[in-house]
Amino acid sequence: MSTDTPPAAEALRGSNWGRWGESDERGTLNLITDEKRLADLGTPRTGRVFSLGKELLRQPSSVGDYRTPFQRTTLASQSDEAFWEAMAERMGTPAPGTGANEDVVITPTHNGTHMDALCHVYDDGSLYNGFPRESFTSLGGAQRNSIHRVGGIVGRGVLLDVATYLGVDWLEPSFHIESALLEEVRAAQGTRIRPGDVVLIRTGHGEAVAYAKKMGEEPPRMQPGLGLASMDFFDACEPAAVGADNSAVECIPCEERFLSVHVQLIVRRGIHLIENLDLSELAAANCRDFFFVAAPLKIVGGTGSPINPIAIG
Amino acid sequence: MSTDTPPAAEALRGSNWGRWGESDERGTLNLITDEKRLADLGTPRTGRVFSLGKELLRQPSSVGDYRTPFQRTTLASQSDEAFWEAMAERMGTPAPGTGANEDVVITPTHNGTHMDALCHVYDDGSLYNGFPRESFTSLGGAQRNSIHRVGGIVGRGVLLDVATYLGVDWLEPSFHIESALLEEVRAAQGTRIRPGDVVLIRTGHGEAVAYAKKMGEEPPRMQPGLGLASMDFFDACEPAAVGADNSAVECIPCEERFLSVHVQLIVRRGIHLIENLDLSELAAANCRDFFFVAAPLKIVGGTGSPINPIAIG
Amino acid sequence: MSTDTPPAAEALRGSNWGRWGESDERGTLNLITDEKRLADLGTPRTGRVFSLGKELLRQPSSVGDYRTPFQRTTLASQSDEAFWEAMAERMGTPAPGTGANEDVVITPTHNGTHMDALCHVYDDGSLYNGFPRESFTSLGGAQRNSIHRVGGIVGRGVLLDVATYLGVDWLEPSFHIESALLEEVRAAQGTRIRPGDVVLIRTGHGEAVAYAKKMGEEPPRMQPGLGLASMDFFDACEPAAVGADNSAVECIPCEERFLSVHVQLIVRRGIHLIENLDLSELAAANCRDFFFVAAPLKIVGGTGSPINPIAIG
Amino acid sequence: MSTDTPPAAEALRGSNWGRWGESDERGTLNLITDEKRLADLGTPRTGRVFSLGKELLRQPSSVGDYRTPFQRTTLASQSDEAFWEAMAERMGTPAPGTGANEDVVITPTHNGTHMDALCHVYDDGSLYNGFPRESFTSLGGAQRNSIHRVGGIVGRGVLLDVATYLGVDWLEPSFHIESALLEEVRAAQGTRIRPGDVVLIRTGHGEAVAYAKKMGEEPPRMQPGLGLASMDFFDACEPAAVGADNSAVECIPCEERFLSVHVQLIVRRGIHLIENLDLSELAAANCRDFFFVAAPLKIVGGTGSPINPIAIG
Repeated sequence: MSTDTPPAAEALRGSNWGRWGESDERGTLNLITDEKRLADLGTPRTGRVFSLGKELLRQPSSVGDYRTPFQRTTLASQSDEAFWEAMAERMGTPAPGTGANEDVVITPTHNGTHMDALCHVYDDGSLYNGFPRESFTSLGGAQRNSIHRVGGIVGRGVLLDVATYLGVDWLEPSFHIESALLEEVRAAQGTRIRPGDVVLIRTGHGEAVAYAKKMGEEPPRMQPGLGLASMDFFDACEPAAVGADNSAVECIPCEERFLSVHVQLIVRRGIHLIENLDLSELAAANCRDFFFVAAPLKIVGGTGSPINPIAIG
Repeated sequence: MSTDTPPAAEALRGSNWGRWGESDERGTLNLITDEKRLADLGTPRTGRVFSLGKELLRQPSSVGDYRTPFQRTTLASQSDEAFWEAMAERMGTPAPGTGANEDVVITPTHNGTHMDALCHVYDDGSLYNGFPRESFTSLGGAQRNSIHRVGGIVGRGVLLDVATYLGVDWLEPSFHIESALLEEVRAAQGTRIRPGDVVLIRTGHGEAVAYAKKMGEEPPRMQPGLGLASMDFFDACEPAAVGADNSAVECIPCEERFLSVHVQLIVRRGIHLIENLDLSELAAANCRDFFFVAAPLKIVGGTGSPINPIAIG
Repeated sequence: MSTDTPPAAEALRGSNWGRWGESDERGTLNLITDEKRLADLGTPRTGRVFSLGKELLRQPSSVGDYRTPFQRTTLASQSDEAFWEAMAERMGTPAPGTGANEDVVITPTHNGTHMDALCHVYDDGSLYNGFPRESFTSLGGAQRNSIHRVGGIVGRGVLLDVATYLGVDWLEPSFHIESALLEEVRAAQGTRIRPGDVVLIRTGHGEAVAYAKKMGEEPPRMQPGLGLASMDFFDACEPAAVGADNSAVECIPCEERFLSVHVQLIVRRGIHLIENLDLSELAAANCRDFFFVAAPLKIVGGTGSPINPIAIG
Repeated sequence: MSTDTPPAAEALRGSNWGRWGESDERGTLNLITDEKRLADLGTPRTGRVFSLGKELLRQPSSVGDYRTPFQRTTLASQSDEAFWEAMAERMGTPAPGTGANEDVVITPTHNGTHMDALCHVYDDGSLYNGFPRESFTSLGGAQRNSIHRVGGIVGRGVLLDVATYLGVDWLEPSFHIESALLEEVRAAQGTRIRPGDVVLIRTGHGEAVAYAKKMGEEPPRMQPGLGLASMDFFDACEPAAVGADNSAVECIPCEERFLSVHVQLIVRRGIHLIENLDLSELAAANCRDFFFVAAPLKIVGGTGSPINPIAIG
């Protein structure tokens, strides 16, 4: 961030508060109009589907163990045939050897591949668009900027494959990605970015974690990601949402202060973040623009949602 | 189902076991080729997005209370600022008034709007494609036909709006939808269905439930839905997946025996089901074909997944 | 409460803040000395065990559906024999037909038979002993007055069987139990109460609920229980803890204001409450004093715990 | 186990199947009569309470990560004051600054300090007393030998402090405790054991884990505990239940085969096991016999329960 800007102006820089009205809870998702989306449907060249969500296993969080791992437990299985008989009034009597399997899942909403709602982070006591942080309560969750306001993020997506551009399998832990580098990658790829596109950044961090696991080593505690000096790039291209293949989109440790890039993107600009993406197949297929669909669960009051985003290349 | 067919032939009717190889776990999703999908992208006329998932609230299941309601609880909120300070090594020191909200969700996988995996139901001791029911275990879940094999269901979708065709707000509880009626609706709508399309059936049941709730009444225990005599229709049009705005796609009580239509669609044909859809906006917009994306969470071993399907009209 | 007392004095009435030091988090549990407990072991006359905890089933809460029901799901069962083989390095290879069943439980801490921690309720911004309400945070829970400070409540218990004394199966919903009635019951029973005893109040409400269920009716929404005018009785007998066979010890609706009796007992006096007890067998056995043990789980930061209290008569 | 015994006789050795009738689900808990319990109340000498349950934190399981850690999340807190207002009809209007904190806990039933139900393990297709393993189903849990059949284990307990006897802080990982050693410890302590007493074995393993943690090291993967050759001791003294300060009572790796000591104690003899006890304070106080109370939650169909056992010395 420029240090020459006077503080008052600096505090407003890039801010989208009020841009779509005082009651807006969707931020830059407003940039995706139906017309743009209709045109975006012409992006794919092969029709191939890329599923960008990671598998949900009993893996611990990469951010901190205050988030317990995803868990799948069994609600019903083939051992419950007597129960299905007991439900015969509504469900019919089962033939021998007929039954159903069902499970229950328990998961933090910010583990694995997920989307951050605009209520996820607050700064100086406020959420995006000036809603007070008190609009989140323990029992009801977010009264403002809840994840269920998203519906779906549907339109053109682009991949900025930083790792491939730099000729590495993955960026070093703590590597700060800044505006100049993003622009270089974009130009080298020949990828045009239009306002309202979804921008996905590939750091290779997912591959670094997979490699460590394969070698029986601890995954790197620190992570490459966006630095504070990447804001100019996003202010120029105006994405509808930003995603990456690391745990927090931004670099870890965060630059200067707690979740500083989250504050810039989510709180100030109203940009939803998508984290822990699996971008390896997109990269391998050299697919740099695509039709993108991310549809978070409509968790009323939720701060985020596990998702399985889809790219059609 | 014809009663003239000899039992042996009857047992094979409509079966897709082996059609895509002995190890196939995706069933009729194989009908969606990249070429078809690329062509399907031309379906939308306006670019409008319809989110077909219902809101996730603390509502009890409409099937039975053995499934406890969806629950969102708070993992972290503005009351945890001291904790964020403690994470400063990795996440940076928070400025005063800065913090994050996070939650945990607990949910049965077959409540609310969800997709049934092909492992969800077994019949005569077998899952779709002949895998033994023992391939599902309590701890690991489904070794075969798990929901994480889906990735995404992405292609053209069509709506068969049975309630509107019959001129009612909703079909009567227990109403059996059969092949002739589906064909009538399709023809009256002028909707063409191609192999590999996703077929969504609108019964109006969601509106019946909402109306009962509004009036402070119990929702109807029985539900309209597909009857066994709807198989000819699906064998003729060969859908990639089938969805509806009721709890089980099929009518409740189930016809003849336990989950009889599930057995026909899931076990025999390998057709994924999508349940508890909100089809009211699609109907109101008179949108009968669209580009459709449903991306279940990649729950390894899972029997289903909550989803928020997207239609682009 | 007397309305003649000046407000300042009234605000102090019955208060135990500071009585056991500024850092005390155990309140009236301090009244149970080892000497008293050793003497209390002489209370039982038959050695019979009464388990006062209710069965944990998938029943909804009697207070509000913001608490989802208790749930037991299966983690592992006989279907997981292949998994046990995979654990052979540590657990040994299973013989055929050998295995283990395991489950996972999910439960609100204030459903079913449970104990309220002293952090459960705050009034005028403070918990018992003056700790600020901000000492409870979402992520860490209670930094003060957590349930894990209890360890165990172990000593003499007495039953005041109000329903039996009044000759009814259960008290009317909303019935307020006041000091004079409690003293009448005590005297009629001939039960002596010593400082540090645990006092259990029987309203018969559990039987009212069971009866409604048996008749297929809704259980009463309102409940008999302690009224505000019962404080003199407790200030005279100084119990270590108070329990009852209803959802909140106090009557529902609460008298005057939100959880008014909780505020008097928990916040002002530092008395742990035990709720939803099953006192029917104690009553049937005419057992009015006993050795009592309630040992909440040591949930660090917890606001309460499910328990199964034991009385030895 | 003697290898001279003929297989048929060996298979019966120590078995309690049928001893308390064909429908018995409580095993050696039958050994605690009311008369014995009344006498046992005379055991304590000081009235001091020892809470033997460990704190429940977000710690991973010491057995395997298929059990996710205990989790406490927040259901309601001071941020929910508007909600309490909304409940005013039943709960009264809150005064400003008044409210309630509540949480939800999620836990495997065999993590932390817990009791194994008699349905926890099966061998040769059967549970204790010959019930078929199929009597456990995923949805309903245990139809036989469920943890809710226990009620409470209440009577005299003894501590066999093996680590102190051997003059070590903790036994070596994998150390097998056998009958001769148990008898030596008992004799050296001068502790009499009567049929129906609860026998707690101290290995010091808890201290080994705490020490590793303090030093920032991984806790030992293997654990000291009972070996197969300890059965003669238990057959001689006939305990009502057996507990220890390790994860599985038996040594890890298990001797010969999967959970071999669990099979001997639970399946064959009907002895409930209590695991992960904190016995350090009992040992420090040199308290070798005491009045003991363990009251598992009455989880209907449950395979075990978290508990906080109490010893009164």
